[in-house]
Amino acid sequence: MLPRGRPRALGAAALLLLLLLLGFFLLGGHLASFPCALPPRVPPDGRPRGAAACDPHPQADLGGHNRSDCVLPRPLPPKCELLHVAIVCAGHKTSRDVITLVKSLLFYRKNPLHLHLVTDAVARNILETLFHTWMVPAVRVSFYDADELKPQVSWIPNKHYSGLYGLMKLVLPGALPPDLARVIVLDTDVTFAADIAELWALFAHFSAPSCPPLPDEQVIGLVENQSDWYLGNLWRNHKPWPALGRGFNTGVILLWLDRLRQAGWKQMWKLTATQELLTLPATSLADQDIFNAVIKGHPALVRPLPCVWNVQLSDHTLAERCYLEAADIKAVHWNSPKKLRVKNKHVEFFRNLYLTFLEHDGNLLRRELFGCPSPRPPEAERLQQALAQLDEEDACFEFRQQQLTVHRVHITFLPHQPPPPRPHDVTLVAQLSMDRLQMLEALCRHWPGPMSLALYLTDAEAQQFLRFVEASEVLSARQDVAYHVVYREGPLYPINQIRNVALAQALTPYVFLTDIDFLPAYSLYDYLRASIEQLELGSGRKAALVVPAFETLHYQFSFPSSKADLLALLDAGSVHAFSLAPRPVRLRRHHEWPRGHTPTDYARWREAQAPYRVQWAVDYEPYVVVPRDCPRYDPRFVGFGWNKVAHVMELDAQEYEFLVLPEAFTIHLPHTPSLDISRFRSSTTYRGCLQALKDEFLQDLSRHYGAAALKYLTALQQP
Amino acid sequence: MLPRGRPRALGAAALLLLLLLLGFFLLGGHLASFPCALPPRVPPDGRPRGAAACDPHPQADLGGHNRSDCVLPRPLPPKCELLHVAIVCAGHKTSRDVITLVKSLLFYRKNPLHLHLVTDAVARNILETLFHTWMVPAVRVSFYDADELKPQVSWIPNKHYSGLYGLMKLVLPGALPPDLARVIVLDTDVTFAADIAELWALFAHFSAPSCPPLPDEQVIGLVENQSDWYLGNLWRNHKPWPALGRGFNTGVILLWLDRLRQAGWKQMWKLTATQELLTLPATSLADQDIFNAVIKGHPALVRPLPCVWNVQLSDHTLAERCYLEAADIKAVHWNSPKKLRVKNKHVEFFRNLYLTFLEHDGNLLRRELFGCPSPRPPEAERLQQALAQLDEEDACFEFRQQQLTVHRVHITFLPHQPPPPRPHDVTLVAQLSMDRLQMLEALCRHWPGPMSLALYLTDAEAQQFLRFVEASEVLSARQDVAYHVVYREGPLYPINQIRNVALAQALTPYVFLTDIDFLPAYSLYDYLRASIEQLELGSGRKAALVVPAFETLHYQFSFPSSKADLLALLDAGSVHAFSLAPRPVRLRRHHEWPRGHTPTDYARWREAQAPYRVQWAVDYEPYVVVPRDCPRYDPRFVGFGWNKVAHVMELDAQEYEFLVLPEAFTIHLPHTPSLDISRFRSSTTYRGCLQALKDEFLQDLSRHYGAAALKYLTALQQP
Repeated sequence: MLPRGRPRALGAAALLLLLLLLGFFLLGGHLASFPCALPPRVPPDGRPRGAAACDPHPQADLGGHNRSDCVLPRPLPPKCELLHVAIVCAGHKTSRDVITLVKSLLFYRKNPLHLHLVTDAVARNILETLFHTWMVPAVRVSFYDADELKPQVSWIPNKHYSGLYGLMKLVLPGALPPDLARVIVLDTDVTFAADIAELWALFAHFSAPSCPPLPDEQVIGLVENQSDWYLGNLWRNHKPWPALGRGFNTGVILLWLDRLRQAGWKQMWKLTATQELLTLPATSLADQDIFNAVIKGHPALVRPLPCVWNVQLSDHTLAERCYLEAADIKAVHWNSPKKLRVKNKHVEFFRNLYLTFLEHDGNLLRRELFGCPSPRPPEAERLQQALAQLDEEDACFEFRQQQLTVHRVHITFLPHQPPPPRPHDVTLVAQLSMDRLQMLEALCRHWPGPMSLALYLTDAEAQQFLRFVEASEVLSARQDVAYHVVYREGPLYPINQIRNVALAQALTPYVFLTDIDFLPAYSLYDYLRASIEQLELGSGRKAALVVPAFETLHYQFSFPSSKADLLALLDAGSVHAFSLAPRPVRLRRHHEWPRGHTPTDYARWREAQAPYRVQWAVDYEPYVVVPRDCPRYDPRFVGFGWNKVAHVMELDAQEYEFLVLPEAFTIHLPHTPSLDISRFRSSTTYRGCLQALKDEFLQDLSRHYGAAALKYLTALQQP
Repeated sequence: MLPRGRPRALGAAALLLLLLLLGFFLLGGHLASFPCALPPRVPPDGRPRGAAACDPHPQADLGGHNRSDCVLPRPLPPKCELLHVAIVCAGHKTSRDVITLVKSLLFYRKNPLHLHLVTDAVARNILETLFHTWMVPAVRVSFYDADELKPQVSWIPNKHYSGLYGLMKLVLPGALPPDLARVIVLDTDVTFAADIAELWALFAHFSAPSCPPLPDEQVIGLVENQSDWYLGNLWRNHKPWPALGRGFNTGVILLWLDRLRQAGWKQMWKLTATQELLTLPATSLADQDIFNAVIKGHPALVRPLPCVWNVQLSDHTLAERCYLEAADIKAVHWNSPKKLRVKNKHVEFFRNLYLTFLEHDGNLLRRELFGCPSPRPPEAERLQQALAQLDEEDACFEFRQQQLTVHRVHITFLPHQPPPPRPHDVTLVAQLSMDRLQMLEALCRHWPGPMSLALYLTDAEAQQFLRFVEASEVLSARQDVAYHVVYREGPLYPINQIRNVALAQALTPYVFLTDIDFLPAYSLYDYLRASIEQLELGSGRKAALVVPAFETLHYQFSFPSSKADLLALLDAGSVHAFSLAPRPVRLRRHHEWPRGHTPTDYARWREAQAPYRVQWAVDYEPYVVVPRDCPRYDPRFVGFGWNKVAHVMELDAQEYEFLVLPEAFTIHLPHTPSLDISRFRSSTTYRGCLQALKDEFLQDLSRHYGAAALKYLTALQQP
């Protein structure tokens, strides 16, 4: 049938096109609302309904006043067209918010995206790491320095909570690359509920420059403001900036950049702002006031967009008029400073939408776009090839896969103030997962110095963690603790990868490498700094300071306030040297290292008055203080076993001397074993795979350190 | 502008309609593929693209052979039209699977849905509870008894892994209500990635009976099978059932029920099956073989659907041909018995889609449909009213809200074999959350009898739990442990609501009400049954048998094998009567009840040879064995504190005698305090709210038991 149909189809298509044009003139621009019409009243959505392009049946969602606004279904951009999105983002909190926006974008998108992020140094640091480790196919990210843009807007007095950063949307046409023609600009408090390509498609509705009835071409797409703010009747003496009617909201903007540049946008908005500021003291709603003032003077610049693309949940919102009519909400805008706590009878609905993406596993968004060729960055390419080469039948397949997994990392998840630079300062470095959150308060009490903690969490757990910290006075008071979220993926605990994230983010010259279930002596932070200075580690002496480890098996335990106290508890048997406490067989921990701390020489430590040097021995894994540029942990050790041992071996191979500090100690608190451990408690496969990892590690060590590494092989072969 | 435009718009619309019809005849059905065309080759999706209805530009996703299949964008059903979906579901595993399907459906849907579930008793029990507690607005669920349908299909020999249940799709036209005209039938291994309304809209493309070129009307919408199975060339001597070309896949079916009934469907498929079974030994692919055989004989019955509505991930799938071309995948079908482990180079993409809904928080799907009036069931209505009356400024608002929260409940989440009825049998009843999973193996070793355990989990945690059980030999060997998932919602731990779920699902005449961090004596199960028999509890004696509780604070602990052993440990000080162990102030548990077990009279128990009666006293909260019909726990006690105390008070108010068993004991193991506890450790608001709950409970007790309850008030007022 196909050959028969084709010529007829072509002829008919031409005829239909002709008739459509005829229909367009008859309808005075109402049927086909593009390419040349004046902005009509916009129906709440552009969802195609009804059998024919023009639906003769009035429908519920096209409420009374919209019935004649019959529009053709909107076209979608071509399958692999690259869509550009610009977002201004600054600080720790906004960096978290923008991720939820991006997750909602990625969830529905089917096109390649290029994100243009205007950021301060904090946000850039966070988001660069995040996107680098997220490795979402067909997403490109460019950063623009917000500090460089500041002078262009800092002259504008502004009372809005978004501060200077809100105003930066005005300067995007100049800040973005000159060859970028069109961009969608989003506030960080927007959540998508539909494919952004549908929004991008609305650029096709902008009037073209050659259209006779229009003096200007349309350059800015905006949704009407969904409150009475600009009507100036919200309270007595409320004097808003000038706007067309209710004005427009700038949380979602379609910017036709090259047209804006040609139209002299920069001069236009500056002139308008300067004029208005002669009579108005400051902007109340940042860029939005200025956009509206410009539009008031040049109404033809604006292309009104369907309200569903910016459902505004401000206080006293009128958004209900939009979404009760519409078939479909496309994007929600939390434009009240109260955010999720805004009062609105439907807020539960919108909260659910927001929480959906807040807690959505971002790893699941690493979906490729079928049929859109998108070259991966070289590291992603190498990773794919390595993963493809794994043998799924290999007994250690899970280990191999886990080692190769690149975890999404969100550094400084919570507000963080880096410590002032001090030559002998030391950061406590540790990692944890959800089941050890309870340790944090105690740790904060025991260690008054800077900490870099990596948390292995799901997206949902990261939110629980956030609430946990906010609910804790002790934790929320500390600005010198940096929390880095490493997102969970895969069945095995990637302990050394997590540790390396915490280690890489330590900002002091020295680090104390410890585990989360140990509490340091109250004096340890001061004592370590003094020891570093005394031992002159700064002047090139290569040493690892050993902090002796103890443990208690009792819940009833008062932490010793001094070495003398500790010795008394040791003598009373309520504290033991770590891993040397007697354990009955059935409750013994699986990967127990009777030799893990023996070389520290606890007998000598009891009496020691000065630091003393000890020699490496098999299975030695002390807690140490080392310079920040020490070797990283070997990421091949996933799951449990040998992860610290290998690190200490490498310190020894690099000729660090191990110096035990006579007044330092740290104590392990009892806890329920983690699920990750119990999973493998009795697996022989697990032990076999661990042995394979060890062997490979030792081979690499030999390769790297040559004959010097022979001693490890020899030592390990001894019974 | 509106009044001016309207008359013109109407005239033009009429003209356009005329011209569309003209276009239709010119195109011979190719432009507008409905209402009367023969099935053309279907493009992979129906996504509206291009400015005009008929896109003259060839696009990537409409691959070469499809370019002339220009279709009008599909209409969507009217905003609030009710869509009907039928699913056959049997057993524990399939009941879990169907929930993931339903979650994906609900995520994208914008219409009210009526689910027609054909279930066995197990699935009905699970899904009835689930939907009743899920309370999703605008979703109606009807159940149909699969057992009643069995005789209609059990005569067909079938080799497919879906068994008899797969075949039941054939009898749906007879089984569903006679006034139900159209339904979408889905396999439980389908995941949606688009709004099902778009699929429903394809009914509009079915040819109508009055169309002259067709002998029959189209009655069944199906996607082509995406493998070469029906071509019969997969292996030597492979003899599939007859089909048109590659045949069709029945994982997603549009059934036009009333047309099917009129066309004599029942006779048609039976006749075809009977005839084919003369030469073929059995169906290989269940209903799908028979559907295809019928269609082979009556090709005009079928309306081919776009391939994106049933992307089949079977072994050796050809689905790539579909999804690499399409802009959009609408529904994925895991139609290999390997499910997520199927080999496919894009399986990671599809897995991510599946995991998205598997782990999606189902509570977030309780979204209302704006603008669609959908009367709530009375209990949901009452709940809404009660929630609306809460005062958000009330200091105990979180408590009030949590008490009212109805948690989604998935009973018997894992396969479960109810215990055979025995007159003195007793079920261990307890609740737990993720941080106590490690207790399960030990508990299974200590309690060889039936258990009913409620787990308070998120959707994602429920999957972790599933993997945990599957990885444990001890746990997966037990069929008499019923696990019920209560889905997390809200900030406070609804401990008594969770306990009530476990209690309600106990199937033996007696229950042992305990906590998850206690391990019972190895002999306890046998001893309790013997005691129940001896004490003649069956003959109406109203008693609560007390199991004395002990605790150890040590990790190094060998569980006593007898009462004598236990007494020795008590004397050695390594075990204490519960909550009476000495604790230093800083590690003391917050809600400690020194009086919680005192009335049990541990001194007397040491010597006791026979059960002895003890009297209720303030704060008594022993672990007890009671008949299954005992009072429920009071759900107002959320968070921690007084939850068991109130229950024991109510047992006393109902005149249960407390009988301490001389050989029974249970021991509390040490563990890290749960996050839920630590959250409130130091909150005075929390303690204030708990006091308010207590007062209200006592008032209700007085109201219910009258003067008899006075003693509790008096006792509590004593210092």
